Formats: sequence, structure tokens, C-alpha cells
Amino acid sequence: MISKESLINDLNTIRSKSPLVHNITNYVVMNITANALLAVGASPVMAHSVDEVEDMVKIASSLVINIGTLSRNWVDAMIKAGKVAKESGIPVVLDPVGAGATNYRTKTSLQIIQECQPGVIRGNASEIMALTNEKGNTKGVDSTASSDSALDVAKILAKDTGAVIVISGPVDYIIDEQSVIKGRNGSPMMAKVTGLGCTATALSGAFTAVNKNYLLASAHAMAIMGIVGELAAKKAVGLGTMQMHFLDQLYKLSDKEIIQHFNME
Amino acid sequence: MISKESLINDLNTIRSKSPLVHNITNYVVMNITANALLAVGASPVMAHSVDEVEDMVKIASSLVINIGTLSRNWVDAMIKAGKVAKESGIPVVLDPVGAGATNYRTKTSLQIIQECQPGVIRGNASEIMALTNEKGNTKGVDSTASSDSALDVAKILAKDTGAVIVISGPVDYIIDEQSVIKGRNGSPMMAKVTGLGCTATALSGAFTAVNKNYLLASAHAMAIMGIVGELAAKKAVGLGTMQMHFLDQLYKLSDKEIIQHFNME
Amino acid sequence: MISKESLINDLNTIRSKSPLVHNITNYVVMNITANALLAVGASPVMAHSVDEVEDMVKIASSLVINIGTLSRNWVDAMIKAGKVAKESGIPVVLDPVGAGATNYRTKTSLQIIQECQPGVIRGNASEIMALTNEKGNTKGVDSTASSDSALDVAKILAKDTGAVIVISGPVDYIIDEQSVIKGRNGSPMMAKVTGLGCTATALSGAFTAVNKNYLLASAHAMAIMGIVGELAAKKAVGLGTMQMHFLDQLYKLSDKEIIQHFNME
Repeated sequence: MISKESLINDLNTIRSKSPLVHNITNYVVMNITANALLAVGASPVMAHSVDEVEDMVKIASSLVINIGTLSRNWVDAMIKAGKVAKESGIPVVLDPVGAGATNYRTKTSLQIIQECQPGVIRGNASEIMALTNEKGNTKGVDSTASSDSALDVAKILAKDTGAVIVISGPVDYIIDEQSVIKGRNGSPMMAKVTGLGCTATALSGAFTAVNKNYLLASAHAMAIMGIVGELAAKKAVGLGTMQMHFLDQLYKLSDKEIIQHFNME
Repeated sequence: MISKESLINDLNTIRSKSPLVHNITNYVVMNITANALLAVGASPVMAHSVDEVEDMVKIASSLVINIGTLSRNWVDAMIKAGKVAKESGIPVVLDPVGAGATNYRTKTSLQIIQECQPGVIRGNASEIMALTNEKGNTKGVDSTASSDSALDVAKILAKDTGAVIVISGPVDYIIDEQSVIKGRNGSPMMAKVTGLGCTATALSGAFTAVNKNYLLASAHAMAIMGIVGELAAKKAVGLGTMQMHFLDQLYKLSDKEIIQHFNME
Repeated sequence: MISKESLINDLNTIRSKSPLVHNITNYVVMNITANALLAVGASPVMAHSVDEVEDMVKIASSLVINIGTLSRNWVDAMIKAGKVAKESGIPVVLDPVGAGATNYRTKTSLQIIQECQPGVIRGNASEIMALTNEKGNTKGVDSTASSDSALDVAKILAKDTGAVIVISGPVDYIIDEQSVIKGRNGSPMMAKVTGLGCTATALSGAFTAVNKNYLLASAHAMAIMGIVGELAAKKAVGLGTMQMHFLDQLYKLSDKEIIQHFNME
């Protein structure tokens, strides 16, 4: 069962163990992703060469694959790292950025799902729908579909893949074959800063590194994102301050703030 | 005719339509470029693989090509995307970062101009001069030539290419075969933050996406840059706060602020 | 001899001459590295294609090689640029990010050392130990070894390579065959922001560009990092504000602040 206590417990574990999260992610968000992982207490590493991903993922506690600026060499490395992670029992989290916008992104996402069996797949409604051949009307990397409309296909996707499916939006849905957790934290300002969706995926990497229950782990990541987003938005006057306060709030998030704002069931 | 009203009108169109701007740009500025496009109200997407640029540019409202950290695969994708954009009537904006500093940059810029026929070319004085075989004394990616000295060659370049030429500097010049618009907004602090020149180019992508008059569109982009730069510089104490306030001010820019500060003719 | 005066002197030279620093560095830190070089008064350029690094390094005053997100094409360019720099008498500064974490990183670092003869090598304790076949227990890119334990191997490495070795940590060590300089400035908050280690390396590039005594030049860079880090940490409430204040403080650092805080011998 998801609860404030389970969230606080996982967060404390991340802060004390500082798990190594191996990211193969996109150029736009590498800096904020690395900073967010440091802020939550994890230890980020970026490595994408086929000449080293095998070595790197073996010393990592989780692998985050994000296709936001993909190309052939990177996809090769994603597949290689993902297979090694799968064989080694290291959790794999996938962010199918822009799936549905181009055939290459949809095809690559499906290939990674098939060959690497991610434990968590996080996207916006359009991206998740694109993975099940539903027309998601992706506009570049922004969703034009509602989270509600993606809920049913996400359940099918969860069943077919065995992965926990996370749909980010005004309401966040965290879904496995049996359950749906709804998160109601967050702020519209979060969609105005580039890379906060990718940051949610990266934090899922940190939480799956310390909690083998991926449904809970990814729900915890989304709860943290939403709470910190709310706190940051209260202080922000625009994108610049939003990004800055997000990292500050994530770094100094207290149990009290979690207890006060937690809104997930 | 350029006016406060035409600027406000285009800005409102961007905010209401949120045009998709496809960027093939450099690693240094991807994050701030994406954030600036979100701040102005556009929807940014970054994609650079030859396996998907054709699909991506076809759903975009404009294409921004920036050679700041170029390499062979990226140049192939720039050319491919640029040709598709040209054939599809999608505006192409080129930033020849560092043209003149290396032969590779100059040659690639000229190739893109020839094969993709950009509607707008924005650079500093050195870069624009390098495109016409004038010695621009580029120091890396920073200009050592004055904007005034580049004005005459820019007029020739405009005539030869059919593109609007934008020279950024203490005074901004926006030039086509018939006209020269001068922009006097801005702050010396803008040159102290990396990527604000590239941001000007990206915003030109947003404005050409909503206004087929590229002279006006790119002048509007430069006016916004200058006004926001002035407002941000008043609050900044250094580079860090300058970058942050720039994004904040761009996000919350009001008609009143535009009317008060607009200085372009 | 290291002194406040020698530091102030070099800083003023950077500010007046604005040396061009050519960076072949990693995707995570490119933005903050470029901004930090601008903040200290240098002129940064990023270029990594084998088709242009030779031209670019020849007009630069120093070359910074950072292997944080390496891959084959990039390593080829690093070697090519490094050889040209060596032959042209342009200082080369190496950051062996993550050496010891994967064999590819260790091997590449050693290859760059052998073929390009860097004048300065800066890393954390684990990375420096990995270069001498000592087990450094690198966790991704974060050190798990103490600076003290790396001191002896660093002296051997300095002797074997002829390079100045810099070990970053709670105490910074700057080492050549004869001398050890210890820097005691800094703040634990500096390790919480991604890329400040890489920034130290980039600043070493700026200082070696104006001072041929690499021991002093890299000690000056570490002193600046530490003093600015202290000043920023006093104002920071988390990672976001730390990063912002770091760039602000670096930009407006005064002689008085240097004189007041300098703690190196």
C-alpha cells in the first residue's frame, strides 16, 4: 500500500545508500537530470558508448533509458545496456520520449521493451498510447491526449509487458496489471520547464534502485515530483526560478513537507 | 512596418498556437534553447538522427539549424531536414556558429545555405562576414568585428541568398534586399551568458512559424530578446541570475513592458 | 610561490586577455563549463569533430579534454586535438572522469596521457588512483577514496608523466615532482552540484592559458573554485541556488574577497 510512510522510508534509503543510477538519456536534460538525482540523494552516472555500457551497468543499481535525442549508436548502447541489466536483475526504467511523433521513436521504444523488459515505462498520455498503436496525437514531445484516455491502453500495456506504466499529467497514474494508483500532487508550472518529465523518469530509477516493488517505487518517484513541484511553483515567477527552486526543494525536502502535501491513493 | 503592435500580435499568436519548432542545435545550449522556446509560448523538439528528421520536420512549423557543435552525422541530418523543410515550405533559420573560426564551419554553413535556402540567417558580425569571404576575425565563437562593418556584406548576402540576415550586437541589424531594421534594445550582460545568441536564433524559429514575413518575424524575435535582456539585466548580479531572470522575464513578458521598452526602427 | 598576489595577477590577466579555451568535454557539463569560463573572463569554444579540432586548437590558448561521456569518435578527436596542441606548445588539461569505473575510461585516459602529454591532470582521488593501477573504488564518477590516500600515487604519476596532478576533495592537492600545494577553501555543497569538478578542470584551462607555470596555474584555478564555492554556499539553500550563486560569485569576484578568503599553501 502506498503511504506517506512508505515514501519517507524509500527516500531515506536513497539518501543513506546513494545508489548509482546509470543514465542513457538525452542531451537536453542531462544536466538537470544529474542534478535532480544528486538532490534526491542518488549518485548519477551518464555513459552511452557500446564500449563501456556493459561495465557501467554492472556496477549500477538501476538503468534509466530515455530516447529524447536518439540516434543509431545510442540505440545500440541502450539495447546492449538494457540486456545486461535484464540478465543481471538490475531494474530498467524507460522513457519513450516523443513515441508517436516519428516512426523511429515508436519502433525504438517497442524494440527496447521487447529486448530489455523494462520494469517501469513512464511517459505522457500520447507516448503511452503510441506504444499500443493507439493514435496519441503527439505534438513533438508534448502530449495532446488526456491521461484518462490513455488509462485503458496503459492497463493492456502493463499486462502485455509486465512493466509498471506511469502516465504523467495533471493527474498521474501508476498502473500494473492489478492496481491503479492516482497522484494528485503537482503544478501546471511543471510542464513549462523542459525536462521535468525526464526527471520523473530518472527519479523512478533512484526509487527502483532501493525498492523491488516497482509499483510503489515509481509511485513514490511521482509523489516526490508532485510535492516538490508544488513547493517550487509557490516560489517561482517563471521558468528560470521554477527550475532553480525545484532543485532546491528536492534537495531539502523534509518529512514534514511530505506528510503535509502527500496526495496519492 | 515594424511596430510594437506587430510584435505584440505575433507574440500572442505564438502563445495561442504554440507552434512546434524543430531544433537541430548544439549541445551547449539545448537546455536553455528549449526553455526559452517554452517561455515564449512555443513547443520545442530536438531531433537530429537521419532516421527521423524527415518525419519530425514535416510535423513542425519551423526548423532551426545551429552548427555550434557540428560533426558529420549531424551535418547530414541538418541537410536532410533542411531540404525537406524547403520542399514543404517550412521556414528554415540558420545559425552559423563559429563560421570563420574553422574552415569546416564556414564550408558547412555555405552548404546549408545553398542546399536548404534558409529564410533567416542570424549570426554575430564575424560570422556573417565569414559567409561572404570577408575576414571576420572570429575568436572561437565570439565576434571581434563590429556590426557596422558587417552591414554592407550582409546586404550582399541578403541579395545573393534571398534570406533575411540578422547581425546581433550592441545594435542589432535585420536586413533584406530592400530594408534595414535597427534594434537598440539589449544589455552588455547578454554576451556574458552562453547561448543567448543561439536563443535569438531559436526565437526567430518561433516567430517565422507564425509570420511569413521573415523580415518582421526575425525583427520581432530580436526585439523580444533585447527587451527581455534589458529587464533581466536590471535584476541580475552575475551570469547565474542573468540566465534565470532572462527565462522568467521572457515567460511573463507583458504588452505593457513591450510598449514601454520597444526600441526598433 | 603561491600567494594571493599571484592569484590576483593571473585572474586579471585572464580578464584582460580573454584567452580562447578549446573544450572537448562531456554533455552534462557543457553549459555550466562554458558559463564558468565566461564568468572568469575567458572565451570558451566547444568543438569535437575530427574535421575541425586541428583548426580550432591552433587558434586556442589551451585545450581541455574531459572524458565524462566519451565514445569512439570523440576519443579520436581528443587524441587528434591533443597531439596538435602538444606539437604547438598549447597547454593540455585532462579530466579523467570516471577512470576506474570502466576499463574503457581508464584505458582512454592512459592513452591520452601517453599521446598528448597533458600539462595538468585533475581528478578526484579514485580517478587519480585508477591511473596508476591502484584500486580507487570509483563509484561511477564519484570518489570513494580519500585524497590523502591518493597523495603518494599522485607523486609517482607526476614524476612518470611530467604533468601537474590535481586531486580535488575536502582538501585539494596540487602536485608536481618537487612540491605539494594544499588548498583548504571550498564547501561540501560543491560536491552536490553536478559538474563543479569539471568546472575546476575548465578553469585550469583558463589559468594555464596565461601562466606557463602549470603548478601555480592549476593551484590558482583550485583556489578560485574554493573561494567562489565558499561564497556561493553561504547564500545557497540547495543545488539550484548553489549553481546560480556559483556563477554569479565567479563573475564578480573581487580582489578583496580573494585576500579575505585565500587559504592555500
